[in-house]
Amino acid sequence: MKTTRALRFFLLLQIATLALHSSDVFAAGSNPSYWSPTAKNALTVAFVISDDADVIDMAGPWEVFQDVVVKKELGYRLYTVAESKAPVRLSSGLMVIPDFSFEDAPTPQLVVVGKQGGEGPSPTLRDWVRKMNAEQHTLMSVCTGAFVLADAGLLDGKPATTHHNAYKGFAKMFPRVKLEKGKRWVQSDPMIYTSGGLTSGIDLALHMVEMHYGRLVATETAAYLEHEGAGWKR
Amino acid sequence: MKTTRALRFFLLLQIATLALHSSDVFAAGSNPSYWSPTAKNALTVAFVISDDADVIDMAGPWEVFQDVVVKKELGYRLYTVAESKAPVRLSSGLMVIPDFSFEDAPTPQLVVVGKQGGEGPSPTLRDWVRKMNAEQHTLMSVCTGAFVLADAGLLDGKPATTHHNAYKGFAKMFPRVKLEKGKRWVQSDPMIYTSGGLTSGIDLALHMVEMHYGRLVATETAAYLEHEGAGWKR
Repeated sequence: MKTTRALRFFLLLQIATLALHSSDVFAAGSNPSYWSPTAKNALTVAFVISDDADVIDMAGPWEVFQDVVVKKELGYRLYTVAESKAPVRLSSGLMVIPDFSFEDAPTPQLVVVGKQGGEGPSPTLRDWVRKMNAEQHTLMSVCTGAFVLADAGLLDGKPATTHHNAYKGFAKMFPRVKLEKGKRWVQSDPMIYTSGGLTSGIDLALHMVEMHYGRLVATETAAYLEHEGAGWKR
Repeated sequence: MKTTRALRFFLLLQIATLALHSSDVFAAGSNPSYWSPTAKNALTVAFVISDDADVIDMAGPWEVFQDVVVKKELGYRLYTVAESKAPVRLSSGLMVIPDFSFEDAPTPQLVVVGKQGGEGPSPTLRDWVRKMNAEQHTLMSVCTGAFVLADAGLLDGKPATTHHNAYKGFAKMFPRVKLEKGKRWVQSDPMIYTSGGLTSGIDLALHMVEMHYGRLVATETAAYLEHEGAGWKR
């Protein structure tokens, strides 16, 4: 009885909703070699985390990218990266084990940098972000993640945005960056994008999806997410 | 030089944006006794997780609750709870260490249940959810987390909603639940709420904030989040 019921539950759930969106490409366990062959053509996205890094700065874009389905295959593969693989506590204590350190992270096509904790970017993070930029991988900041990109000198002379509460501090600290206020996101240069605070990272991620896979896939993803904002379309 | 620069960065960042919203109540480490005295009057929220549990079902409400500030104190304290304290991989592989197991979790005022992985709710989860309900703690589901509450028999004869792709499967599996379609969230009974898919959990969480702390605090939280939807106001 129990088994039948569980199986029926499982099957219905999978059939009804989740066949394409379940993340069975990632098996449980601590081994990060969990990328399925079904995602072999997927774009790789690295999420920078640290103690006190903001949860939704990471989780908003994470959810967007994981939900992208292109011709029945997943559009992205995702990993977290930090100073080391020791567990970190994201904002309000969410305890996450990073998949990789900056030393051994596989090459990403896209790097997501949200608000980080600590006393400003570490030399390791600064160097890694500069390296990613030098190798022409796309960088996107969410919220005060823009401070990390600006600190690395990558936004000098370029337009950028950040969380609305941080406008004043950002402008004072990085006078050479052309701060744009009231925007969901701003394209800073061909390979760098910055978004506003917190939930605006969802819109920038959807814009990335549109760039990579087109308007239809982005629209389907937004609908799947039941995302009500239209800020990604700008 | 280095120290001065880092300190300046840190101070500006904290002063500009994050003084009230940083989560320094939670120190890094594996000991879950990290709740600060500043949050002593806060409401406790438990987030149920498991392998393949959906990231934003958890992270959306997590971010909402963590950002609630009432008279310069945090409005909520948050923890994750699972079958055991062994690391789990949430959707697309995000590796999280649960703070508590169902056996040792502290009493919450509110329980958030998003989409869980596996072959339907385990007997342990089913029992725990029923216990939380019997003890009159509020339950809220996000996305197909409604399947967990329905499976526990808590939604029979009551209105509820879930992810739009799951309507058909949900109606077939739980014919006694009054499925409501096209809603951001539905109040099922005085102590149970169900939301639609994924991002709609943000709106239900904001509604909870309004119930607990009033419209002004909820409005301030939504503004801080740069959340564009108005679905929480219904």
